[in-house]
Amino acid sequence: MSDYFRKVERSATFSPDKAAKADLFAGERLFVGLNCFEAGQTQKVHAHSAADKFYYVCSGRARLTVGEETREVGAGEIVWAPAGVPHGVEQALERTVLLVGIAPPPRQSAEGRPAVGVRREPDA
Amino acid sequence: MSDYFRKVERSATFSPDKAAKADLFAGERLFVGLNCFEAGQTQKVHAHSAADKFYYVCSGRARLTVGEETREVGAGEIVWAPAGVPHGVEQALERTVLLVGIAPPPRQSAEGRPAVGVRREPDA
Repeated sequence: MSDYFRKVERSATFSPDKAAKADLFAGERLFVGLNCFEAGQTQKVHAHSAADKFYYVCSGRARLTVGEETREVGAGEIVWAPAGVPHGVEQALERTVLLVGIAPPPRQSAEGRPAVGVRREPDA
Repeated sequence: MSDYFRKVERSATFSPDKAAKADLFAGERLFVGLNCFEAGQTQKVHAHSAADKFYYVCSGRARLTVGEETREVGAGEIVWAPAGVPHGVEQALERTVLLVGIAPPPRQSAEGRPAVGVRREPDA
């Protein structure tokens, strides 16, 4: 398989317990992955003090929060969460796949997997 | 309008002369924008020596090159172009919109617009 090409529909992964993640690419400066939600699943509001991030809605429908604003978004919408601004998924309204880009990439966990979305600011 | 939410279909812009670009978001560490192609339009192969980049195919169909590989891609496919690896759009096969993320953001041009895609490596 090529190191450079991926299909969202083949990479997406879901869990009945909680939102699931799929890592796609990680460079020195940028990480790209998927956040995958079944209807009703959430991602707590959090912030990255030193990383810019965006979500792109590949499929589905969800209520996303950035800063003081919460909006229902669907396929083809982009959500920007610059460094320091709290963001999260209040609730997926149906099965939803979000493409996520984070720069710089999250630090590697002990298992070598980027600790995406789990770094929390004390005041987030 | 919110600073954090955008719709691809509202932001995409096309030109009969050449591929067109729409800037969406630019932080200190990450730039997000659209590359928009009419059928037949191209983006020359180029490389960024110190920036990681990806394309996500929002709509359409095109032949993209990364490194030694050229593939036909469609909606829902992600193409990774890490720092130093030549990449470009050989040809759009129909009207195509690519979401692009670049980290760190391209330098600002004299007009204040990120000079996305125009920085060429001498050997690219």
